[in-house]
Amino acid sequence: MILQHIYDIASVCAAHGIKSAIISPGSRSAALTLAFVRHPEIETKIIPDERSAAFIAMGMAQQQGKPVALICTSGSAAYNYAPAIAEAFYQEIPLLILTADRPPEWTNQYDGQTIQQSNIYGKHVLASYDFPSEVNHEDAKWHCNRIVNEAINAAISRKGPVHINIPIREPFYPDSNEPVSFPEVRIIKNTPIEDTIHRSQWLTLGKKWQNHTRKAIVIGQMEYSKPLYTALYRFAEMAGIPIIADIISNQHDLPGVIHNQDSFLNPQLNTIHQELAPTLLITLGKSLISKNLKLYLRNNPPTEHWHISSSEKLNDSLQHLTDLIKIDPAIFFAEFAQHVGGKGSFSYLNQWQQADHAVEKGKADFMKMKKFSEFQAFNTVLNMVPDKARLHFANSMTIRYANIIGAPKNKQIKVFANRGTSGIDGSNSTAVGAALSQKLPVVLFTGDMAFFYDRNAFWHNYNLKNLRVIIFNNHGGGIFRMIDGPKRQPELEEYFETKQKLNAENTANDFGFDYHCCSNLKDLNECLEEFFSTSKNAKILEIQTNSVRNTEVFAEYKKAILDAFKA
Amino acid sequence: MILQHIYDIASVCAAHGIKSAIISPGSRSAALTLAFVRHPEIETKIIPDERSAAFIAMGMAQQQGKPVALICTSGSAAYNYAPAIAEAFYQEIPLLILTADRPPEWTNQYDGQTIQQSNIYGKHVLASYDFPSEVNHEDAKWHCNRIVNEAINAAISRKGPVHINIPIREPFYPDSNEPVSFPEVRIIKNTPIEDTIHRSQWLTLGKKWQNHTRKAIVIGQMEYSKPLYTALYRFAEMAGIPIIADIISNQHDLPGVIHNQDSFLNPQLNTIHQELAPTLLITLGKSLISKNLKLYLRNNPPTEHWHISSSEKLNDSLQHLTDLIKIDPAIFFAEFAQHVGGKGSFSYLNQWQQADHAVEKGKADFMKMKKFSEFQAFNTVLNMVPDKARLHFANSMTIRYANIIGAPKNKQIKVFANRGTSGIDGSNSTAVGAALSQKLPVVLFTGDMAFFYDRNAFWHNYNLKNLRVIIFNNHGGGIFRMIDGPKRQPELEEYFETKQKLNAENTANDFGFDYHCCSNLKDLNECLEEFFSTSKNAKILEIQTNSVRNTEVFAEYKKAILDAFKA
Repeated sequence: MILQHIYDIASVCAAHGIKSAIISPGSRSAALTLAFVRHPEIETKIIPDERSAAFIAMGMAQQQGKPVALICTSGSAAYNYAPAIAEAFYQEIPLLILTADRPPEWTNQYDGQTIQQSNIYGKHVLASYDFPSEVNHEDAKWHCNRIVNEAINAAISRKGPVHINIPIREPFYPDSNEPVSFPEVRIIKNTPIEDTIHRSQWLTLGKKWQNHTRKAIVIGQMEYSKPLYTALYRFAEMAGIPIIADIISNQHDLPGVIHNQDSFLNPQLNTIHQELAPTLLITLGKSLISKNLKLYLRNNPPTEHWHISSSEKLNDSLQHLTDLIKIDPAIFFAEFAQHVGGKGSFSYLNQWQQADHAVEKGKADFMKMKKFSEFQAFNTVLNMVPDKARLHFANSMTIRYANIIGAPKNKQIKVFANRGTSGIDGSNSTAVGAALSQKLPVVLFTGDMAFFYDRNAFWHNYNLKNLRVIIFNNHGGGIFRMIDGPKRQPELEEYFETKQKLNAENTANDFGFDYHCCSNLKDLNECLEEFFSTSKNAKILEIQTNSVRNTEVFAEYKKAILDAFKA
Repeated sequence: MILQHIYDIASVCAAHGIKSAIISPGSRSAALTLAFVRHPEIETKIIPDERSAAFIAMGMAQQQGKPVALICTSGSAAYNYAPAIAEAFYQEIPLLILTADRPPEWTNQYDGQTIQQSNIYGKHVLASYDFPSEVNHEDAKWHCNRIVNEAINAAISRKGPVHINIPIREPFYPDSNEPVSFPEVRIIKNTPIEDTIHRSQWLTLGKKWQNHTRKAIVIGQMEYSKPLYTALYRFAEMAGIPIIADIISNQHDLPGVIHNQDSFLNPQLNTIHQELAPTLLITLGKSLISKNLKLYLRNNPPTEHWHISSSEKLNDSLQHLTDLIKIDPAIFFAEFAQHVGGKGSFSYLNQWQQADHAVEKGKADFMKMKKFSEFQAFNTVLNMVPDKARLHFANSMTIRYANIIGAPKNKQIKVFANRGTSGIDGSNSTAVGAALSQKLPVVLFTGDMAFFYDRNAFWHNYNLKNLRVIIFNNHGGGIFRMIDGPKRQPELEEYFETKQKLNAENTANDFGFDYHCCSNLKDLNECLEEFFSTSKNAKILEIQTNSVRNTEVFAEYKKAILDAFKA
């Protein structure tokens, strides 16, 4: 029973509510694999490419709202997890990373799959532990159990990845007659704590609130939360102030929410929109997509900026933060509604709403012109996604288009994007993790660079019939043609846009996905209903566009919006 | 000229002899990209997937014998380099890693492609530096120049990866009228130092030598070196002692070299071969492939074990090291030949050679039975590779088969395998790096798991007509069926072997490679001449085999060898 302390990890995980483990193949990790595969309360899946495996686990953890365990063998396997771990760290998604290792005396001995795994994820995990390499003494067993309890509690309460490195000596496999058993294990629970604000502080905040007429709430990346939705709904109704929300804030169903800020806060319109700047800014959530919104708020500083967050990390990305209020935003707004009296300035709210409506109208008029391009096609597809769809947007132009167009309202849509590190590396896998976690439709919008980068997301034996992938294939990194710097360089096509030739049809065939391709609006409109219908397999819709034309059309849209305001 | 300190990096690199840079697309890294692309003495290539980019750079550096620069943007891009950096660290291949970063004040602010990049590669780089984020003062310019000089000198003299993290503020791109210029830069040279051994020490070593009759040289992973070949050739001729060399030692052309050790040192034959154990063991090189050889030497300890290495790292993987002799092995053997007199024990050498020949004959007899399987097919293809081919072997079963069969002799073959960390993650890319560095044929032997793991090696626009890829596709990790532990588990197929369905034909079509598939020995024999002929494109030969049959045939081979010795 030399491996019992390894088998016990699965029992501790199950007792803390962990339901899923993503395993990559390996021999040194065999005892971990067997423990999780055989544990009756844990569902396991095997994914060969560790880079994809980690993003898939992250996608699952995001949907489940609890840690998913990741298991890999020793050596460079562990390093392939790193991109997803950084993303999970910044998106605050819990993961329990279990890396098998050689015992420490074997490092740097040129003896097979051995790297320096202790603390390998540096500052991108909440905590990092090493199991002892010999577990005979009762104290060593106590140590192992305590590590797993502490790691899982940290992942859950502080929301993020934790790493346990586990040296394992041969033999790696139990004998045929040695059962993998799960005796009772010790569980150390962690009571969830709620932050509260003293009544006197509420009064102070309430007084400050009264000092301002131009008050606004700006929301960055958040997962959808019913309590927050309700609190914000009531607060906004009572206070009558603008709520400005990027698509990744998941506030698209909030009545009257402002979402066209990236369009109307174009720096060329800043003199027109100077009066929109709040003197009291309240923010919540993590990153913002809209660069124009960020620049506007940095350049038009509020006198007070309160950031409401369950985390005590100082997020001062708008550079004028005055107060960090470390409390669950749902609790904050529910309580604060009782400490502020009456409506805010109607004219101020009205100014924001007029700007928002003007863009909405301008955008609708622009789309009516049916100028086939990524932007138009994106709008067409986004408005057709099924109810309750989980929308995943890849980085670069994809998430920018999504933010400008906005999520469909009142369809119970939830929006996901890897904006923790904003890499293009794991968006397929994150969507696959979401698809494996539920039966609801998962719709991934992606560009060709992000799609082909992460093809190994699909390299496994699990059915993904609820997954729909829409690839906007302009054969390169179209964003480089959109932004100002690279398009002036002679190296644009080869070194920035990085022209690439692949289409997705072979990939679809490789993985048994249904495949449809279109390159005009008529075909696109005709195929969408069928594309979003249920099926036995995942489906790919590849929309072929031209990057020069895409750039022109997007510039025309921006100009149309400028003209609408300047008229 | 706010970016001049960035442009100067390319000049310092060129002056130190760096000829190549591998770039991945990004905006924050634009000044690095432009500097290297426009520098007249540096050749650049752009590779979108950073994981593959880093292995490609490593493959190039391995062929060129000098550092290759790697350039990526900020964020998770840098983490995708990590697997290749660990491999380069343990294989001692020089790399100069240049990661663009946000300036430090922007970390942890949820503001786009920002992770904690300082020291991100932990202990897997020789040195790690951060550029200052403001470079206006002359001292800051001096600092930048000194960092680049020191980093390149470390990469060259200590052989391995070095990392410079480079914070860059906007604007990222020069104005249209601002040239990227390369004024003269300061170069700090590093005179190569040779280690020598004092005459009195040589005499001591010579005396010790005389005390032993059973003396053997064992060689682990090394790149081919003409001076070492010559020194070993003369030393062995003079001293008459066995030289035991795994395939990755690149000593296959050394007359009389022992290479079947993995077969005849089968633990079941150890009583028969007890007399082979040396009392003086001299080792050089890094890792050994042959587990049987390692076990034999650990279990039959020499009284003295000298390890000859230019590095002062203590490699005691055989657990009986008595002397580390830190000197270039080529110098050691050339000099030591003058301090030892006359031939060693002929009967001892003869014992090793008899065992080696017995395996060679047994193997030839076995192959004549034409039992179609990976092992047989591997033997067929390996013996047909063109002269001067650079052979790359993926990890797992591929390198094990290669080591048992042995490299073809007297064809000026060079052998490469990622045995630094022994991962399956970057073997395609390493071979691609080799193919991009020269016109000689590069032949990659790989299994289906390693091949599909690293398909992005081919995702770029460079012709690879000198590349030949042989995929032994048994649709899973066949090694798990070969070894004893997993094949006893009910989880064998799903969780260890990890059955996968892909064939390589779609991949070949995607990348414009010629493709041939065969599943019997007749077809294989018929296609090989054509396969190795020159062509306009890279070629893939996919050999379909059955993993159950592969396991049977390999077991039959092992039994045939056992029987040959026991008879």
